[in-house]
Amino acid sequence: MRKNIKIVVSYDGTRYLGWQRLSGKQKSRSIQGYLEEVLEQVVGCKIRLSGSGRTDAGVHALGQVANFFLPSALFHCDTTLQCNQWKQECNRQLPEDIKIQTMEEVPTDFHSRYSAVRKTYEYRIDMGERPCVFQRKYALWFPEKLNVDKMRQAADCIVGTHDFAAFSTGGKEKKDTVRTIYALDISKHGKQILISVCGDGFLYNMVRIMVGTVLDIGLGRKSIDSIPQALATQNRHLAGRTAPASGLYLCDVYYRN
Amino acid sequence: MRKNIKIVVSYDGTRYLGWQRLSGKQKSRSIQGYLEEVLEQVVGCKIRLSGSGRTDAGVHALGQVANFFLPSALFHCDTTLQCNQWKQECNRQLPEDIKIQTMEEVPTDFHSRYSAVRKTYEYRIDMGERPCVFQRKYALWFPEKLNVDKMRQAADCIVGTHDFAAFSTGGKEKKDTVRTIYALDISKHGKQILISVCGDGFLYNMVRIMVGTVLDIGLGRKSIDSIPQALATQNRHLAGRTAPASGLYLCDVYYRN
Repeated sequence: MRKNIKIVVSYDGTRYLGWQRLSGKQKSRSIQGYLEEVLEQVVGCKIRLSGSGRTDAGVHALGQVANFFLPSALFHCDTTLQCNQWKQECNRQLPEDIKIQTMEEVPTDFHSRYSAVRKTYEYRIDMGERPCVFQRKYALWFPEKLNVDKMRQAADCIVGTHDFAAFSTGGKEKKDTVRTIYALDISKHGKQILISVCGDGFLYNMVRIMVGTVLDIGLGRKSIDSIPQALATQNRHLAGRTAPASGLYLCDVYYRN
Repeated sequence: MRKNIKIVVSYDGTRYLGWQRLSGKQKSRSIQGYLEEVLEQVVGCKIRLSGSGRTDAGVHALGQVANFFLPSALFHCDTTLQCNQWKQECNRQLPEDIKIQTMEEVPTDFHSRYSAVRKTYEYRIDMGERPCVFQRKYALWFPEKLNVDKMRQAADCIVGTHDFAAFSTGGKEKKDTVRTIYALDISKHGKQILISVCGDGFLYNMVRIMVGTVLDIGLGRKSIDSIPQALATQNRHLAGRTAPASGLYLCDVYYRN
């Protein structure tokens, strides 16, 4: 009998090559690899983290979720007390751009990826006339004029259950490319545009391609019709460009209960 | 007859050793030195920038002001056109964390420091329970409970014309340590506290010591009375600690007209 531990992690992805573990010297250049190294030091045993999904190089996270199993030797520990101590010690050893928000025991059948029922992402766009030195790694600088109403109409065409093969870098390689987008909201706050997406799952680069498509439509480079066409034909070329990583945040992963 | 050019610059101070020019290999580790190097490349002559004041290592700026003189050989150029071209070319060559906001010709008697009549600074405090990975270089993380009402009362004691020797690292070394603080506002936005200061001038470390003092009072470590006492006695030990650089922003420098 082992114990299953869930962690929620936030990170500034700027310095890293993404979530996914890398081998050898590159290990600590991935978020997963860095976390595993520190957890192993602190907990004192081999740790294999399962993440809710990968994030690319430069993508940020407010609430990435991962879980790992403790060996049976640690079965009799007071998990609540231990998790609290481990979290504090990990955060002391982790760099300033990766922090564990919560650490707790969960049922053994919990899996950060397979148990997830919903995920939310945010994409930030800075429409300031000049590039802002403080936003350069945290938002896409986009000074061109955007038609936000058209962007919202485009977003409405994306919401729903569709085959999103056209909105993925992997294309039709993946067996099942049907996903449900529950909401795709576009809000304007002064010179910032915030695009929030909630769905039951996302294909590789799907959020960034959705954002790129909505931006192309906001610019008038593509028509709104291109979205139903891309969805119907699964043709990647009918969707827009892949928006840069630095504006993207994995916000929350939701589970049943 | 020479031409006087004013620039407004924003920078993320994290990577730099401060505004003040450094010699030799360290030159491009100062904002002033970096700017001079790029301006010399672009304008094609020796440039000596005068800043409105120094900022320390790690301090940020939204609107630092500096000026420099063009040699008489450039007297007959169309300055408006040239400034616009120079600004664009400088911003292409400058790193992402330093950007020139405006560049324009001003009367020859304009001096970014001596002509300044008012300056505003902002200090950002993050009171989140856990350190935020995105705020680590842009706000002071301060999870302890603060009494904001007491902080505001403390701020009211600082506003006015006083001898601020106690609120300076240089102490009484400087001849004239009398300054006027026009406003010191403390606002709360969720878990963020923003301290805005406006004054006719600031001594070395003055804003950071004012913030440190106000924080000590908010914590209950110092009484509000310590402020009039520090002002009256010019005793540095009666004022609070020097708050870290990373939360501080030079916002605006104002000139007559």
